[in-house]
Amino acid sequence: MSEIDIAELRAWARECGAVALRLFNRVEVRRKADRSPVTEADVTIEHMLVERIMARYPTHGIVGEEHARLDTAREYVWAVDPIDGTASFIAGLPIWGISIGLLRHGAPYAGLVYLPVVDECYWAVHGSGAFLDDRPIMVAEPQEWDSEDWLAISSDAHRRLDIDFAGKTRSLGSAAAAICYVARGTALGAILTQASIWDLAGGMAVLTAAGGIGATLSGAPLDNAAALDGWTMREPLLFGAPSIVAALRQRVRLRQ
Amino acid sequence: MSEIDIAELRAWARECGAVALRLFNRVEVRRKADRSPVTEADVTIEHMLVERIMARYPTHGIVGEEHARLDTAREYVWAVDPIDGTASFIAGLPIWGISIGLLRHGAPYAGLVYLPVVDECYWAVHGSGAFLDDRPIMVAEPQEWDSEDWLAISSDAHRRLDIDFAGKTRSLGSAAAAICYVARGTALGAILTQASIWDLAGGMAVLTAAGGIGATLSGAPLDNAAALDGWTMREPLLFGAPSIVAALRQRVRLRQ
Repeated sequence: MSEIDIAELRAWARECGAVALRLFNRVEVRRKADRSPVTEADVTIEHMLVERIMARYPTHGIVGEEHARLDTAREYVWAVDPIDGTASFIAGLPIWGISIGLLRHGAPYAGLVYLPVVDECYWAVHGSGAFLDDRPIMVAEPQEWDSEDWLAISSDAHRRLDIDFAGKTRSLGSAAAAICYVARGTALGAILTQASIWDLAGGMAVLTAAGGIGATLSGAPLDNAAALDGWTMREPLLFGAPSIVAALRQRVRLRQ
Repeated sequence: MSEIDIAELRAWARECGAVALRLFNRVEVRRKADRSPVTEADVTIEHMLVERIMARYPTHGIVGEEHARLDTAREYVWAVDPIDGTASFIAGLPIWGISIGLLRHGAPYAGLVYLPVVDECYWAVHGSGAFLDDRPIMVAEPQEWDSEDWLAISSDAHRRLDIDFAGKTRSLGSAAAAICYVARGTALGAILTQASIWDLAGGMAVLTAAGGIGATLSGAPLDNAAALDGWTMREPLLFGAPSIVAALRQRVRLRQ
C-alpha cells in the first residue's frame, strides 16, 4: 500500500491552476483563438506535475496527455491531464480542469480533479470516501427520475447517440468534470463517447469512492489496464450509481 | 431617444450578482437541492432591479420573470430575468446570470448579461457596439466550419431536435449566456427550444449590436412584441450571424 499525501497533491493542483488561469485570461475572445496559451499551459503543467510526482513517488509509473509515458507496468501508475477540456479553455468557457489519477494494478486508487475557474477540488484516496473540497459527496441513485434530472453528455452526442431521457442533458466541456458532477450527485449520470486514461483516472477515483461505476455501453466494466496501454475507448462509456448505469444502458443507442 | 446610463446598470448587475453568489454558495450539493436559495435570489434581485429601474426611468414599462408586469405598452420596456439558468444555479454549475434588456417599440435597444461566477459582463447600448467587459465583441461568420466549431443548444435538444452538424454542441445551462457566447464569436450559433422575453431581451441587444440576429426555425424574425405579451416561444429559435442562421435552418429539424 502506498501513502498518498492528498494535502500536498491538492496544493500542487492549485499551483497548476494558478498557472492555467494566468494563461486562460490571455485567451483572445475569438472563434479561432490562438491555441498557444492552452498548449503552453498543457506543457508547463504536465511538466510541473510529472517532476513533482516522480520526485515524491519514485517507484511509481506515470502517463500524461502531452508526452509523458514512464514505467506504466508498475504497481502504481499516475495518469495526468494538465488541462482536461482544452476546447472550453480556448473558447473562454469556465469548465476545464486539472486531472490527476493514481491507479493500482489498473484500478482507481486516488484521484483529484481541480476546476480553477470555480476553485473546486474533487478528490478521493483509497478508503477515504470522496470529497468536494472538504465536504463528503455521494452519487445520486433515485428510484424515479424527473424532468429536473440531468445527464452530462459529450459534445458529439447530437450526431453519435440517441438518448431516451425525459430530463435535461448538458454538455459542459470536460470529461473529468462531468464524472465529478456525477460523483457529487448533482448529475444523475454521464455519457461520454471517447475517453483516454488521463481524462478518466482522476474522476474515476472520485466516482468510485462516491459509490459510482463506469462501464461501456455494452456492459463491460472500464478496462483501465487496456487504457493505460494508450487505448482511446471508442465505445460510449456510462457513469453513475450502479442502478443508474444499468438503466441508462437501455436508453442510449449508438446512431447508425 | 432615451439616455441609458450603462455604467450604472453594470454596477447594479454586479450588486445583484453579489447577492446571488452569497446564496449560490449556500446551495447544498445534492440532486434534489433545496430550491429556496434560488427562489430567494430571484425574488430579491428582481425587486432590487425593478425598484431601481422604476426610480431612474419612470416613464418606462417593465416585465420580470418573477412577477413584475408594469406598463408594457410604453415606448420603452425593460425585461429582466434575475437568475437566468436557475437549474444550473441549483446544480452548483457556474453558468447562470442576470439578464437586463431594454426594448424600444419591441426592438432591442440596450441590454446586459452578467455572469457572476466568472465575473463577465456582456452589454450593449443602441449605437455603441457590443462589449464583454471593456472589449468589443462581434459574432463569428466563417465561410467554412470545422470540427472545433460549436453550437450552444438547449438541454432538451436530445429529444426535441435533430442537428446535422459536424462540430460540437454544448448545453451550458443559460439561454442568456448562450446568446452572449454567440455575440462574442466563440460559439458559431445557438439553438434554443423555448424562450421568454426575459431570457432573450438582454442577450438580444448584445447579439444585435455584435452583428447577429435571432429567428425562428421556420425563418420568421423574433417577435419581441408578441413575447412581451407573455408568450413563451415554443418554436425553436436560432441565433448567429445572418448567414449562419440561414445555414442552420437547413440543418435543424424538430423531431417527430
